[in-house]
Amino acid sequence: MTSDLSGDPILIVGSMAFDDLELPTGAARDVVGGSATYAAFAASLLAPTRVVAVVGDDFPNQVLERLGARGIDTSGVERAQGKTFRWAGRYSQNLASRTTLDTQLNVFADFRPKLPESYRTSPVVLLGNIHPALQLEVLAQAKAPRFVAADTMNFWIEGERSALGQVLSRIDALVINDEELRQLAGEHNIARAARAVRALGPKRLIVKRGEYGAMLFDDHGTFFAPAFPLETEIDPTGAGDTFAGALLGHLARAREFGHEAVRRALMFAAAVASFCVEDIGTRRLEQITSDDVTRRLDALHRLIDPPSR
Amino acid sequence: MTSDLSGDPILIVGSMAFDDLELPTGAARDVVGGSATYAAFAASLLAPTRVVAVVGDDFPNQVLERLGARGIDTSGVERAQGKTFRWAGRYSQNLASRTTLDTQLNVFADFRPKLPESYRTSPVVLLGNIHPALQLEVLAQAKAPRFVAADTMNFWIEGERSALGQVLSRIDALVINDEELRQLAGEHNIARAARAVRALGPKRLIVKRGEYGAMLFDDHGTFFAPAFPLETEIDPTGAGDTFAGALLGHLARAREFGHEAVRRALMFAAAVASFCVEDIGTRRLEQITSDDVTRRLDALHRLIDPPSR
Repeated sequence: MTSDLSGDPILIVGSMAFDDLELPTGAARDVVGGSATYAAFAASLLAPTRVVAVVGDDFPNQVLERLGARGIDTSGVERAQGKTFRWAGRYSQNLASRTTLDTQLNVFADFRPKLPESYRTSPVVLLGNIHPALQLEVLAQAKAPRFVAADTMNFWIEGERSALGQVLSRIDALVINDEELRQLAGEHNIARAARAVRALGPKRLIVKRGEYGAMLFDDHGTFFAPAFPLETEIDPTGAGDTFAGALLGHLARAREFGHEAVRRALMFAAAVASFCVEDIGTRRLEQITSDDVTRRLDALHRLIDPPSR
Repeated sequence: MTSDLSGDPILIVGSMAFDDLELPTGAARDVVGGSATYAAFAASLLAPTRVVAVVGDDFPNQVLERLGARGIDTSGVERAQGKTFRWAGRYSQNLASRTTLDTQLNVFADFRPKLPESYRTSPVVLLGNIHPALQLEVLAQAKAPRFVAADTMNFWIEGERSALGQVLSRIDALVINDEELRQLAGEHNIARAARAVRALGPKRLIVKRGEYGAMLFDDHGTFFAPAFPLETEIDPTGAGDTFAGALLGHLARAREFGHEAVRRALMFAAAVASFCVEDIGTRRLEQITSDDVTRRLDALHRLIDPPSR
């Protein structure tokens, strides 16, 4: 997809990885993944994108070139000695759940995000799911960003409450899935959990619910973006990161962060994330044209097109 | 809620029951339930409602009087010698799943629905979840209904395929939950399963997904009605029947069955069903005023209020 990259630059910090996937359709090894990879491909549909991540000496240059060809600045991707982060997982037959089979942190274990000077003034920042202390280091290096969103996961919610609390108090939006929300709030009810988590800091909470869509809780109320009912579901890996990248990319492009802008971005993110599931890894995401996205966004809008009353 | 019952009459056939519920908030015994009871209370918010069901000699007259006070015609409720149908179930701590502890069919075992003469011309018919052969008997007694919807369950999908197939070929809408849809289609993917089930007959398929909302598949496309994000969730029993009753009641009231009318009815049904969960049994459903429903419907519409693009 060709973009004219006219929006505010967006900085994405996260992982780049190899994934070994056991999917209902078969096994796929050495699939290039990682939260920063998916988010960057998605964000670059709309805005100039900069990535901070670490890869090992086994990571193919050709992938960085593919990112570069999309206008993504990879000068913040550090190449360290050793192996790239690797995750192995098995999906259930219906793709509704997955089991981690293996996690090899490799060079990711010693990752300390370093922002190139040119990245520091990025107005929009996506803190992918890394240790909250590292998310804070990114914020310490960033100069007065206009909009910061963060993702996190069960591991940090359980073990790094204090650092995570500092992150929450300093971001504009938290983007997590429903199970993480429940864990963070200690409360199963989504509406009450959302209220509790927003009280910890982030004015906007975006809850990803996979095939059930996404919800936004902000000062303006609650908003629901449906998931597109796909007929082809191959590989959900990275759909959440794609969602976050597309959301932030849309905001960066619009240079607006009000409640209408966030709602528009949520619909766009739901449209882009749906493509991610249609093939293995980033394959579909790298193929889609802006016409594809527009058509799917239209279909999503029709899905909730309110009947006249 | 007071209604001026100006719509087409709706005929509801289903169960009336006692439920023994183990809820996270405590146990509740002898709760009056059953698919016809919930559906009738909901439908009667909008349209003249007629019920066919069977109760035992232990069923309190006072409940039939409460139905009557809502303008519901209970002359088709047969009182048989013996005990009323009883279901006992235990909900998980988060209300997301439930286990059947006991089912005593009692007088329901020999139920053969008999439509009083005055019921036979009901233009709108809701065939609640009973044996598909009995659903066919109801259709044989009904005279040229304009709109027939049916519910069913895993038990009949598994064991009564042939009779269920005949029902499917003769109804305008099937209203089932997502697990039943998957079982009926032999297909996990919702979009493909919907296509397969619509090919069996019903032009409109309505899929209930609990806290994730409901989806409509028809010739006009796909439509999504969100569930209201409740802060108080006490007892989900009967929410699906409430949904079906409200949906049909809204259609009967409007005397319209086109795609716009069905979409409006879906939103209304989602609003009414949300109340059901807020208290035990039909308690909340019997309390709500038309202002309550309007306010919740407004909130539901705000939830999917599309951002300008």
